[in-house]
Amino acid sequence: MTHASAQHEHDRSVHHSHSSPKGIYLISPSGAVADPPRVEMARARLAELGFRTVLDRAALAIHERFAGTDTQRLAGIARALVQRQPIVMATRGGYGLSRLLSRIDWNAVADSGKIFIGQSDFTAFNLALLARTGACSYAGPTAIFDFGVKKPDALTVDLFLETMRGELEILGFESPDSDPVDARGILWGGNLAMVASLVGTPYLPKIRGGILFFEDISEHPFRVERMLTQLWHAGVLARQKAIVLGSFTDYRLAAIDNGFDLSSVVRWLRQTVKVPVVTGLPYGHVKVKATLPIGRKVGIATEAGMAHLVFEEHF
Amino acid sequence: MTHASAQHEHDRSVHHSHSSPKGIYLISPSGAVADPPRVEMARARLAELGFRTVLDRAALAIHERFAGTDTQRLAGIARALVQRQPIVMATRGGYGLSRLLSRIDWNAVADSGKIFIGQSDFTAFNLALLARTGACSYAGPTAIFDFGVKKPDALTVDLFLETMRGELEILGFESPDSDPVDARGILWGGNLAMVASLVGTPYLPKIRGGILFFEDISEHPFRVERMLTQLWHAGVLARQKAIVLGSFTDYRLAAIDNGFDLSSVVRWLRQTVKVPVVTGLPYGHVKVKATLPIGRKVGIATEAGMAHLVFEEHF
Repeated sequence: MTHASAQHEHDRSVHHSHSSPKGIYLISPSGAVADPPRVEMARARLAELGFRTVLDRAALAIHERFAGTDTQRLAGIARALVQRQPIVMATRGGYGLSRLLSRIDWNAVADSGKIFIGQSDFTAFNLALLARTGACSYAGPTAIFDFGVKKPDALTVDLFLETMRGELEILGFESPDSDPVDARGILWGGNLAMVASLVGTPYLPKIRGGILFFEDISEHPFRVERMLTQLWHAGVLARQKAIVLGSFTDYRLAAIDNGFDLSSVVRWLRQTVKVPVVTGLPYGHVKVKATLPIGRKVGIATEAGMAHLVFEEHF
Repeated sequence: MTHASAQHEHDRSVHHSHSSPKGIYLISPSGAVADPPRVEMARARLAELGFRTVLDRAALAIHERFAGTDTQRLAGIARALVQRQPIVMATRGGYGLSRLLSRIDWNAVADSGKIFIGQSDFTAFNLALLARTGACSYAGPTAIFDFGVKKPDALTVDLFLETMRGELEILGFESPDSDPVDARGILWGGNLAMVASLVGTPYLPKIRGGILFFEDISEHPFRVERMLTQLWHAGVLARQKAIVLGSFTDYRLAAIDNGFDLSSVVRWLRQTVKVPVVTGLPYGHVKVKATLPIGRKVGIATEAGMAHLVFEEHF
């Protein structure tokens, strides 16, 4: 899948008073870090951007495919709440948060006032926090994937920095085949497999009139459709004001698909659910990704082949 | 994964009065039939077993990866309700029932009195029928997979025939590491991915004190665990009297799994959910499979390395 190149606009004169959080605490709540030098590379890149970083002492632990035992990963999350750095970033995604959800003190997470950010498996954290407390956290870069490289993507970095500074007001992106929409609502979503895996549990936020976004990797379009069908049958999709699609990457079609593809799924979605579908969100398992506030009220509008997510804090 | 060889015991003298349904209507509610000669082979094998078969006129239709458009597959299901053969069998699984669930007249399905049987994607049919009407249907062989071969598995055939005759009283199978259990409850479940995909929707039966069984194919153990976690967090697992595991086949572990395997998942399941786990059910995407009544009250008991499912109709 391709995705549109993102633009971003802001007016520094309006928001110059925002202070910029400059410390990042790195935790590994999901998959094991297979290549520790990439964490060091990420720390070097983040240092170049002006961030001090502190690595949780269990962030490089390994147990089976996980970054430590459940107890170790839970302890890392608990330590993140009481240390001094304002931002808490996941080193990577993978799999591991699902089975921890009932053992995390979500009120303590919310009360910590930290800025939590991650993606993929981290969607479970974003949504459980929102469901249990209403607190906002971020879907966006992870240390290894986005910063543990020689040259981080410039736009991803800019969007991260400006979002952390509270300066990003509008994210515009090419969206040539979006349905017309001009709405406001709570922004939520993330990795589709993780969102679907929370349906029917206490960790899926009950959001009406929201702006719901999805991305995924290595999921065949029939699986994407089956997950969307679950959200449809559960009544989740029809309650939203817009469904926003990021990148769906790295899946393989087979001869038996016989023309069935992700575009068939999007067509089916539009026929089935009477909610505007917006495509082209720069988000997913791709280099160029926005930093998105999960649980914050945003605006969304399409016009002339572009879509705009509006992050002004007060509507 | 290995599975135990199944045994079956019955006393024909007790049940000789049962009449035997001898006509099968074949429908394709899910994936396209890629190899029509295998349907003919299945019909030949079923004829050798004394069954007349009638092929629905859309059973070989193809649309994208599906056995016809949604309208065609829905029409096939509707025709199955009003034709004369007592058994309605799916030609195969695949993917396709999920998005039809809200367009099927479940009361008409239940009122038809037909004996529905299939597996894999057909789990959505079994469970939606049970959820919407309380009616029983069967998880078991499909035409192509189990009969569209030169020599159908003898035990699978016997279990199918005896179940259709209402003669099978007890299904015993080797289960050396099962938890001790002696319980009665509604038998339900099927393909784990399909069961999980129904959580939070109107198509998951609300069953307390049930005997819940699972199988799956091509699902990595971390996905199996994530699906079980969804059922756990949704409160489904804790309400059951037993969790019964069939075969989990055709997945690939990677170096990063680092010792994590299906056995890790079963261990985690036992630690997490205080419900007896029974292993070794002869059911799944494997040659030897039982024919199981979804929605019927059954007994389950373990003793001396064996597990027994008891199908007597009146407790």
